[in-house]
Amino acid sequence: MPMYVVGHKIPDSDSICGAIALAYLKNQIGEEAVAARLGELSPETAFILERFGFEAPEYKTSYAGEQVYIVDHSELTQAPDDIAKATIVGIVDHHKLGDLTTDTPLECWIRPVGCSNTVIKMMYDFYQVAIPKNIAGIMMCAILSDTVIFKSPTCTTADIRCVEALAEIAGIEDYKALGMEMFKVKSAVEGTPARDLVMRDFKDFNMNGNLVGIGQLEVIDLSVFDAIKAELEADIKALKVEGNRHSVLLLLTDIMKEGSELLVVSDDAELINRAYGKTPVDGKVWLDGVLSRKKQVVPQLQAAFA
Amino acid sequence: MPMYVVGHKIPDSDSICGAIALAYLKNQIGEEAVAARLGELSPETAFILERFGFEAPEYKTSYAGEQVYIVDHSELTQAPDDIAKATIVGIVDHHKLGDLTTDTPLECWIRPVGCSNTVIKMMYDFYQVAIPKNIAGIMMCAILSDTVIFKSPTCTTADIRCVEALAEIAGIEDYKALGMEMFKVKSAVEGTPARDLVMRDFKDFNMNGNLVGIGQLEVIDLSVFDAIKAELEADIKALKVEGNRHSVLLLLTDIMKEGSELLVVSDDAELINRAYGKTPVDGKVWLDGVLSRKKQVVPQLQAAFA
Ligand SMILES: [Mn+2]
Ligand SMILES: [Mn+2]
Repeated sequence: MPMYVVGHKIPDSDSICGAIALAYLKNQIGEEAVAARLGELSPETAFILERFGFEAPEYKTSYAGEQVYIVDHSELTQAPDDIAKATIVGIVDHHKLGDLTTDTPLECWIRPVGCSNTVIKMMYDFYQVAIPKNIAGIMMCAILSDTVIFKSPTCTTADIRCVEALAEIAGIEDYKALGMEMFKVKSAVEGTPARDLVMRDFKDFNMNGNLVGIGQLEVIDLSVFDAIKAELEADIKALKVEGNRHSVLLLLTDIMKEGSELLVVSDDAELINRAYGKTPVDGKVWLDGVLSRKKQVVPQLQAAFA
Repeated sequence: MPMYVVGHKIPDSDSICGAIALAYLKNQIGEEAVAARLGELSPETAFILERFGFEAPEYKTSYAGEQVYIVDHSELTQAPDDIAKATIVGIVDHHKLGDLTTDTPLECWIRPVGCSNTVIKMMYDFYQVAIPKNIAGIMMCAILSDTVIFKSPTCTTADIRCVEALAEIAGIEDYKALGMEMFKVKSAVEGTPARDLVMRDFKDFNMNGNLVGIGQLEVIDLSVFDAIKAELEADIKALKVEGNRHSVLLLLTDIMKEGSELLVVSDDAELINRAYGKTPVDGKVWLDGVLSRKKQVVPQLQAAFA
């Protein structure tokens, strides 16, 4: 029986590329593994897989009775709905420790670095398995995506060294140019329905018993949102109601100006003030220097909910 | 500000030796660390530290505002009472994933092997730090203890190779003889109050909302309990009431016969039958081949509670 290697709901490039890279490694060390995904590819991820010649992993939402290796999170809200009926054999991640639990011993490769693929590279090194050229390419792109080409405060020297090593294996000379190409793909938002944009990189969190959804769109210039911001605001209001959420936040991140405009709807009008000492005007506030949901948004909200 | 490296409540040799070994490693890589403990040393652990010339780690129960590296579990019930006010910076473990969560990214070195010290040896290898002779000695003893000198079904080839490597560093030729010496120390139960024996290696688990306490005493011959079994039975009854527990189990493990007599008091008379297909008589049942609480008791009970 193979194990399924699968990232979080609404998969990002780290979840997809990580599932492919880890499934390959597991097969190389004699453990049968299949890469899977819980949702559609984002345009960025589709670009990466196309660039290095990969098909999308198997779309699979139910894992009852299966062995599962979790990539890029340890949260019940981001796992398959029937994860309680599966056996979690491992977790590779770089986020806070979430509320997934198991009944049996497992392996966890969790490190406070910028990307799960940086940890997967450590796994390749541990098992002394050579990384194929095309897998090195997608791993490298995932790290460039998660670290916003090293600009994110989540980026560590381990991530930078890892990208350099992977670029060499993949034979990519100007990896930063490839990173910018990726973010240009990510910035093409015209013509996409508001709901699709909001859900493109959206994660639900359980914060002290409250369901909080946080989306993020990283672009090269926030002006791409000028014509559709009202639609985005209306959509996060709708998402809050539909999902019985306490709050929904959407980060519009300008990777060149290095900050985010935060759109927010919440049952608690003081939430953002408690988290950032700033009060949104008309549900919007600019957060200078905020690029990382994981490091600059989730912990601050967790504290504001505590 | 140093981090504290600390194992579980009612520390076993893995928790104590692991805290010492990991604190040393962290200091070697430039992260200030202090080994700590949440309770008294068992006679076995005292024997090990004495044998290799170590003092007991600092006794410390409160960690509010501190940085903490958790050794040998990931369970709230086994962590310091005020762990929610501390920052967990890492976890090294070899058990099922428990209910500890964090607000910020951390490192987790968790592997399905026989002992946390086997994982700590992997950390030494990763950081390429040499293990001092006396630290190799206590790490080796912790692995021999957790794996019952390789007899436990939790023992993996990684544990065996690790003991061999550590024995070489420590300059111990007959490590199995040292292991038997350790278990002889463990088997000396005469004169010890029943409560002290029951609590010597006792862990509480949250099983589907029910508090379940499980103690284990590993000895070379179960006859050492003949004169005190009635006292042990009375004591687990008392422990159940005092702690508002759903169930209390005590495993009397015969490491030579390779099985355990289970003493049990429970609100659910069918619990053991559901878990093992055997019904205790007068609160006692022999479980042949059962040596490991982690692998042969906890998962079976979790399933019986599900
Ligand atoms: Mn990631
Ligand atoms: Mn242990």
